[in-house]
Parts: sequence; C-alpha cells; structure tokens
Amino acid sequence: MTENTPDSPTPSRRSLLAVGGAGLALGAAAAGGAVALTRSGDGSDMAPAAESGGAVPFHGAHQAGIATAVQDRLHFAAFDVKTDDRDEFVQLLKDWTKAAALMAEGRPVGDGAYGGLAEAPPDDTGEALGLKPSRLTLTIGFGPSLFEKYGKKFGIADRRPAALVELPKFPGDNLERTRSGGDLCVQACADDPQVAVHAIRNLARIGFGKVAIRWSQLGFGKTSSTTPDAQTPRNLMGFKDGTRNVAGTDTAALDRHVWVSDAGWMKGGSYLVARRIRMNIETWDRTSLQEQEDVFGRDKGEGAPVGKAKERDEPFLKAMKPTAHVRLAHPDSNHGATILRRGYSFTDGTDGLGRLDAGLFFLAYQKDVRKGFIPVQRALSAHDALNEYIQHVGSAVFAVPPGVRDANDWWGRGLFAAKDV
Amino acid sequence: MTENTPDSPTPSRRSLLAVGGAGLALGAAAAGGAVALTRSGDGSDMAPAAESGGAVPFHGAHQAGIATAVQDRLHFAAFDVKTDDRDEFVQLLKDWTKAAALMAEGRPVGDGAYGGLAEAPPDDTGEALGLKPSRLTLTIGFGPSLFEKYGKKFGIADRRPAALVELPKFPGDNLERTRSGGDLCVQACADDPQVAVHAIRNLARIGFGKVAIRWSQLGFGKTSSTTPDAQTPRNLMGFKDGTRNVAGTDTAALDRHVWVSDAGWMKGGSYLVARRIRMNIETWDRTSLQEQEDVFGRDKGEGAPVGKAKERDEPFLKAMKPTAHVRLAHPDSNHGATILRRGYSFTDGTDGLGRLDAGLFFLAYQKDVRKGFIPVQRALSAHDALNEYIQHVGSAVFAVPPGVRDANDWWGRGLFAAKDV
Repeated sequence: MTENTPDSPTPSRRSLLAVGGAGLALGAAAAGGAVALTRSGDGSDMAPAAESGGAVPFHGAHQAGIATAVQDRLHFAAFDVKTDDRDEFVQLLKDWTKAAALMAEGRPVGDGAYGGLAEAPPDDTGEALGLKPSRLTLTIGFGPSLFEKYGKKFGIADRRPAALVELPKFPGDNLERTRSGGDLCVQACADDPQVAVHAIRNLARIGFGKVAIRWSQLGFGKTSSTTPDAQTPRNLMGFKDGTRNVAGTDTAALDRHVWVSDAGWMKGGSYLVARRIRMNIETWDRTSLQEQEDVFGRDKGEGAPVGKAKERDEPFLKAMKPTAHVRLAHPDSNHGATILRRGYSFTDGTDGLGRLDAGLFFLAYQKDVRKGFIPVQRALSAHDALNEYIQHVGSAVFAVPPGVRDANDWWGRGLFAAKDV
Repeated sequence: MTENTPDSPTPSRRSLLAVGGAGLALGAAAAGGAVALTRSGDGSDMAPAAESGGAVPFHGAHQAGIATAVQDRLHFAAFDVKTDDRDEFVQLLKDWTKAAALMAEGRPVGDGAYGGLAEAPPDDTGEALGLKPSRLTLTIGFGPSLFEKYGKKFGIADRRPAALVELPKFPGDNLERTRSGGDLCVQACADDPQVAVHAIRNLARIGFGKVAIRWSQLGFGKTSSTTPDAQTPRNLMGFKDGTRNVAGTDTAALDRHVWVSDAGWMKGGSYLVARRIRMNIETWDRTSLQEQEDVFGRDKGEGAPVGKAKERDEPFLKAMKPTAHVRLAHPDSNHGATILRRGYSFTDGTDGLGRLDAGLFFLAYQKDVRKGFIPVQRALSAHDALNEYIQHVGSAVFAVPPGVRDANDWWGRGLFAAKDV
C-alpha cells in the first residue's frame, strides 16, 4: 500500500483527489442552496417543504424523515446484528451517524469522494456523486429482537421501552418471515431513488460483518402527504387514502400523537410500524366502480367522503357502509387513535402466476403502537371491506430514537451511553 | 346494469362523469402545455428533450421511446400470448394502440376517467389521474417465440424477419427462464414511475385472457443518455458507462445504426436486446479504486478514458488494459458495431443471502442484432474484466416495428394487415 502523498505518480490518484475536493464543494454548495430549514426543539422542524433537490438538516431534536414533508421515493432496509461485541456495535452506530450526516448534505461518505488510496476500495460507492441531496433523510429504528437477542450482550436488557411491543397476529395476516422483523431499520427517503439506494447501500457496506440486511423494500410513489395543502397522492387502487394525515407542520398534533413525551432515552422519538401490504390488483381492477367506492367510503375521482363534494370535507361516517375503510380507520371509530402515515407504493415485478407483485408499503409513526396502529388494525382486520383485496405479507415494529443533536451526538446514544438524555 | 343516462340518481355517477370531463380537459391542457415536438419521417423525431412532465407525441415514423431523450424511470414487461385467435389478437393490438395514445397524452384509457357505469369496473385503474404525462413513451416489440408458437395460427409464419434471431448462449450466461424471453414486450418509460407502472398495468388489464405478463422489471435510474450535452448518469458501480451512445438527435447515426432500412414491415423499426445484468455489489464495493478503474478503463470521478482529462475525450484504447470494458465495447474493437443504449439501474430488494439484488437492466436498440449486440457481447463475455463482478441473469430480443403513423394505424399493422407498408 502506498502512502497518500501529494507526489504520488498514479495519474488516477491525482484526478481523484481533485474530484474529492470538488465533491466537498458540491456538497457545500448544495447545502447552501437549500431552503433554510430551522429545526428547533419544539417539534416544528420542517415548516416549509424543502425544494426538491435541497438538503434536509440531519441534526435536530427529532430525527428527520418523520414530520419531514414526504419525499417521492423510499429505500427501506431492516438489518440483523451479526456481532456480539457491544463496543463494535456502538462504533458502527457512530460511523453510521457520521455517514448519514454527510449523505444528507449530498456529500460522499468518508474522506472526500474516494478516500485517498487508489489501492484501497473507495470510501463511497460513487453512484450518487454529482446528484443533489434530493432531500435525503435517514431514520434509524431499533426492533424488539435487538433487546431480546442482544439485551444482555449489549447491556441494554433493562432499557427496552414498555411501548416497544411485538405486534399481535391480526386476522388475515399472511406474514413472510423473510419480509418481517429486524434488529434495526433504516428508512431512506429522497426525491431521487438513486440517492436513497446509495444511502442504504453505503450504510450496509459500512456495517459489513457487524450487521446484514435482513430485507429491504423500494417504494416508488408516495401514498401519503404530511403537507396539508398538497393533494393526497393516489395509491395503486387509484384512491386517495390517508387524507386526514397528521401534518408535519402541526406541532400540537405531533406532540399529541407522534413524539414520545415520557422521560427516558426515547423522549422525542417515535414508534414505527412497517407493513408490506400486497394488493390483489387484478381482482380489484375487475371490481365495479360502485363496489370500489363503497369499500373505501370515498368517490374515486375527487376522493370526497360519501355524500360530500371535496376530498378534505369532514366525513359523515354514518353515511358510509359499516365496513368502509375510511369509517373503520377514522379516529372517531378508534377512541381517537391517530397515526402519521408515510407509506409508499411498490411494484416488485410479477409473481409466479403472472400477477403484479404490487401494493402499499405502509409506514406509520406514533407515540405508542398500543394506542395507535394496534387498535386501528384490530378494527380494520376484523371488518374492513378492503380485506378482500389486500393481504399483509410483511410486518415490523421499531423504536425510533430522538434526533441527533449535533456533530458529537450519535444514533442511539441515549440507549447505549447515558441513563438520561 | 343501468344505462348511462344524465338523470341517473347515483351521486357517485354524477361526480364521476364530471371527473371524466375534467380528466379529458387535463389531458388536453397537458398536451398543449408540452414542448411542441415535431416527429417527421426522417428520424429526427425528438430534437429537443421535452420538459419533464410534458407529453411525447405517440404518432410518428418511428416508435417513441427509442431516440426519445431518456426518461428517468422504466417499467418493462414481457408478455406471453394466451389466445390462438388471430382476430382476437389483432383486436388487442388495436385496443392497446388506442390506450397507449391516450396515456401518452396523460389521459385515462377508455371513455373518460372511469367510463360511464358505476356498476362496471372503471375503464382506467385511476392511480395516474391528476399526474402529468411525464414524457410517457410506450414501445412494443415482437419476440421470436411469437413467430415460433403463433406463426401458423396468426398467419405470420413467413413474415419473421431474418434479423430476428435468438441470441446465442454467451460464456458466463446464467439465465433464469422466468426472467427471459416473451412473445411480446412493452417498454414504458416516464419521468414519474407511477405513470410508467400505470401504463403497463392498464395494458395488462386490457389484455386479460389474451396475453399475460411473463416477467417485468422496474428501473429507477437511467444509466444512459441519448442527449449528448447531458452528463452520462452513473451506474450502480459508480461509473459513467456508455458515454459514446448514439444521440437521439443524430439522424445520420440513427439511420446507420438503429433504424431498419430494408423494405418490408420492419422498415423504420429497430431490434431490441434486453438483458438483466446482476451486479455483485458487495464484491465490487470491496475492490480497490485502481482495480475498478482498470476494469472500466475510465477514472471514477470524472469518467475520463485512461490518460485523458474529460469524460467525452476520445479514448486511446491501447492505453487501457486489453480486458478493459471500454476498450472491448468500443466500435473500433468490433468492426464498427454500434448500439443505442437505454438502460436503467434496478434494485429489487435482497436475495436470500442478504445481498442486494441490484444491477443494470440493459436495453439496446440496433438495426441488426447480428451486427450490433451479438458481436459486442461475444467480445465482452470472453474477455471483459467486468465479468468477475456481473452476471447476466435475464435475456430477451424483440423486433420493434415502426411507429404508428396516425389514429387509424395500430401497433403491428404492417406485420398483420399488409404485405407492404
């Protein structure tokens, strides 16, 4: 291995070092050009939607990627831990945090674009070089199995939050083990899919030997909006769903329904439920318009609740069939249970029978899954007319810690390093 | 079934008919707002890149989606024929053509957004309603198996072009039957993935009982450019590849290398090779920068050929290793063989071993595969240093007929309806 000296004779070395500098300059320019977002400690961290291509601040009281205005694309990965060594795992969390902060600014991981040595593998895999930050957010979560399998080894057995429960088995669940669970997760959202894929790939690479991807999911179309002015995007059934989502600008609603307020390392964090929901597309597409609208409790064109004119009109639940999706999912039918949805549509080719393997990758954040997703899904899984056309095939739940406050902080510090944060 | 009368008492009916009208208006507005593209008969059909969101004209001497400035996203589907009835198949091609022309303008298929009857399934599945045309192009191709299996039944046995050959088995090929072949294909490219997915889905739906999807592939990041001013996008190895692509504006090069000039029903068409190329991402990512650059024959940062400063500098092939990808793929190493590339990156989750199932979905158009892809791939498969890091796992070849000239023409008319076109 040669040293990284300025008079290295390798031509590619020199050009790469120059590129490394350009990469840093690009990152700085891109970050400077982004909408100036202020992330304060009060939860109002994402007031205006950043322009597409800009950078979303990585540091703050809450992790970005929850209240953040929903980006266009998703790469979600669940990891399993492969090391028994607490120090090694903590170092990984620190390394990941550093890389995530760089990538959120549109900068390559490591020291410049490709590190210093031509004889070493590049620090960054390179496919995002020259692309904008694209509002990349990276959001980490810890699964129940991390505490079950590594609680003693990592000294965190007594730190599992009471709210981090396994989800019960719901009627109709047809979960695949290879699409469920995970000791850790990272949600990467960005307006450019190559940026989201690059981020997960580089984190996986940094984690080589310490963690391994258990499953992952790409999402190509957002199905929820956290910005109340925007039109709700349509899901692959052609419907607007999740109209009354928690707005990322509504600090009171976030405090009430999304951010954990209990003292302890999860304060300022949230709980994430991920469900891969396969849609029986071909069956749905042969269903009458009337049946489709009855199933949702909305009209298909405008998205208005039954008997109403506009999508955002207050729904009159009793006008809907008792099995209508909107009626059953509404907070008024579930003792006020409210979740923040950030789901994405997926299409993963075709199954062995020529049918599209397509549906909704449902992501929901909440203060407590026992008062959020679980009661809502109990009602839906028992009664929802939509169940004839969908199937839950993947499931996971994660404790999503609070934000990384500054360059000295790291993902999971509250869990691993301090009894109070 | 009730009739579609104006005084129908169903509230959702009325609102939907209104939406149907709005859908038409939207389509017209979007088409009017697009860059005015002129598609003449001389091959210079896509001179300026349409703005993102606009419409690409469907009718013309050549099918759109070949010389068209490459869009951001892809949904590619191979279909198998499921009917023995020639008339039924021809009617499908006519129905598909009509639907494709509507969708290219950003309009729903069928009569308005959801047709007339609440008691019938909607004509359009709806998930693209309200989205822009997003430069959607739909490009059809006919595979060798269509002639082998249906040549007699459809009366086209003597019309198989001599140039529509099966690809030979190349060294290293590890083809999966379920990702290869197909009687037909449709390539959907658009700047919005939901628009591309919607298009394939609605064609599949229209084809129900007559054709079935054999395999499909989503691509999220373009890896080639047909616009010479643009930077070549990076593939998932982090490299710019295919810099010297045929430009969609270079009518002389298109005539020489891409468009079929022989008399007959394929005149003005082209031949498409599709290859799913899996990358051994994890191995590649642990390879030294020097080795990566030697493999490609370019530097990673700028993309310049060995010893040169800029990506588009003329490569000096002898400065590269004999196994360098750029050297082996260059026309000068292959008696001038030149292809038009329109490939896309893909990431389809994770394989059973925790590795990303990611790579390049390679799409190349050419006048004759026997003088285009086949000689180039013979050289690459035998000598390319890249072979250590990639594997071809899917393969197909299609005869792509000329463009649909006007509203009375249809995909494949030359093949099915006329001896000369």
